[in-house]
Amino acid sequence: MSVHSKLYEGKAKILYTTDDPQVLLADFKDDATAFNAQKRGSIVGKGKINCSISTQLFKQLEEYGIKTHFIDSPSQNQMRVKSVKILPLEVVVRNIAAGSLCQQTGLAVGTVLQQPLVEFYYKNDQLGDPLLTRDRLLLLKLATAEQVDAITNLALQINEFLSGFWQQCSITLVDFKLEFGLDSKQQILLADEISPDTCRLWDSAEADPNRRVMDKDRFRRDLGNVEDAYQEVLQRVLQVVEIKN
Amino acid sequence: MSVHSKLYEGKAKILYTTDDPQVLLADFKDDATAFNAQKRGSIVGKGKINCSISTQLFKQLEEYGIKTHFIDSPSQNQMRVKSVKILPLEVVVRNIAAGSLCQQTGLAVGTVLQQPLVEFYYKNDQLGDPLLTRDRLLLLKLATAEQVDAITNLALQINEFLSGFWQQCSITLVDFKLEFGLDSKQQILLADEISPDTCRLWDSAEADPNRRVMDKDRFRRDLGNVEDAYQEVLQRVLQVVEIKN
Ligand SMILES: Nc1ncnc2c1ncn2[C@@H]1O[C@H](COP(=O)(O)OP(=O)(O)O)[C@@H](O)[C@H]1O
Ligand SMILES: Nc1ncnc2c1ncn2[C@@H]1O[C@H](COP(=O)(O)OP(=O)(O)O)[C@@H](O)[C@H]1O
Ligand SMILES: [Mg+2]
Ligand SMILES: [Mg+2]
Repeated sequence: MSVHSKLYEGKAKILYTTDDPQVLLADFKDDATAFNAQKRGSIVGKGKINCSISTQLFKQLEEYGIKTHFIDSPSQNQMRVKSVKILPLEVVVRNIAAGSLCQQTGLAVGTVLQQPLVEFYYKNDQLGDPLLTRDRLLLLKLATAEQVDAITNLALQINEFLSGFWQQCSITLVDFKLEFGLDSKQQILLADEISPDTCRLWDSAEADPNRRVMDKDRFRRDLGNVEDAYQEVLQRVLQVVEIKN
Repeated sequence: MSVHSKLYEGKAKILYTTDDPQVLLADFKDDATAFNAQKRGSIVGKGKINCSISTQLFKQLEEYGIKTHFIDSPSQNQMRVKSVKILPLEVVVRNIAAGSLCQQTGLAVGTVLQQPLVEFYYKNDQLGDPLLTRDRLLLLKLATAEQVDAITNLALQINEFLSGFWQQCSITLVDFKLEFGLDSKQQILLADEISPDTCRLWDSAEADPNRRVMDKDRFRRDLGNVEDAYQEVLQRVLQVVEIKN
């Protein structure tokens, strides 16, 4: 596979075109940003860790029956993916109240939701990724009603699988963000990444609200030991995958 | 009617209990606030104007078949209303994009919406009246699903009537905020007020984006002639009502 030119550099990954127009190479960076890139830093080893975790989770999800953009991982921090047209939506699934949900509703952090909440945000850095109602999403034509319904179902299925998987890692899946894209046949594929950058992961054995945090909130909230937490998440994922195989 | 004690002082009105426990007296103030009360001021004559406009509109809506809290108006700035348990929702109906919708979606101010948009915000000053998705509203138990559906229908009917009424006043109804409450029989009544404080009203004959504004945006955006605009709105309302009778 010969890598062609840089297609797009985002906050966490660089996308390169390849000799196959249907295939992109995603290069995972150590760069970390938070609060719409107002806070910037670097997490040593993050590129390799997030690429490895995402690789394992996409493989597992494919086996579970979810169509993803994942092809393979030619090196630790690189993933070959099917090129898709990303829908400008951040699809968030919440099992436990945290983050902006708490800030905007007054719900206490840690409130267990009776059923998972699927939320759509407008993936638009300039506007600060605002929350969307269904009507606003449709008004802005960010997706069709059918696509919204299909994505909601997919998100719930993915949550069903991932909650169980992370539980096997002794990790509680609090919430996570997904991105979906359309392939050349207008099929919806799960895209982007699934990693401690995009999930809230709490150590199930730890009650302390700071010590339990194993995700990007360590960076956002300056909790320290960011690299260690990411590394620990990867180790647990690899262990569970090994047992499964 | 003997007025008892002050029940609640809000940003625009004071509510008093009366000798009838089912009846409250709303006293409309000249006080004006904006941006969640960060901006404060006073609009001379606003109390009387808003009470008079609300009185006329509630009467018209009752004739149209909408159940409201309105009983009568014993003096220019006072309204007797049925006491209700206000649902902590700001129900916004939008015909044309303006305000926070534009800020949050990037839609241009003045974009005509293909169909009216009914939105729910959490009436909670501490949280800054955040936008609610249907799922968040239900999660917070701010109303039942049946109430949300009933209110959505009521809001659309009210919009249907008011758009026509304001059009007769040569005023374009851009958007407006409603509050609903439950009476002792759990019936949903339209409550609060309908006035230039709670509606975006544009002079239909005026194209200039500043000169056309006939509502609280004159105060919010320091456009001047605030009192004149409110007075002009009342005059047009009274004229149309007179012709109708
Ligand atoms: N399979 C794919 N095809 C095309 N674009 C993708 C694919 N998967 C992810 N992307 C996009 O790659 C970009 C780079 O990722 P990232 O660095 O996380 O960007 P961002 O700063 O937008 O979050 C993002 O815009 C993401 O939506
Ligand atoms: N019929 C009613 N019964 C009880 N409360 C009402 C009724 N109509 C309006 N209210 C409430 O009266 C309060 C005072 O009004 P206002 O000054 O506009 O308050 P706010 O500062 O909360 O906007 C508001 O909380 C409003 O919801
Ligand atoms: Mg990203
Ligand atoms: Mg009010």
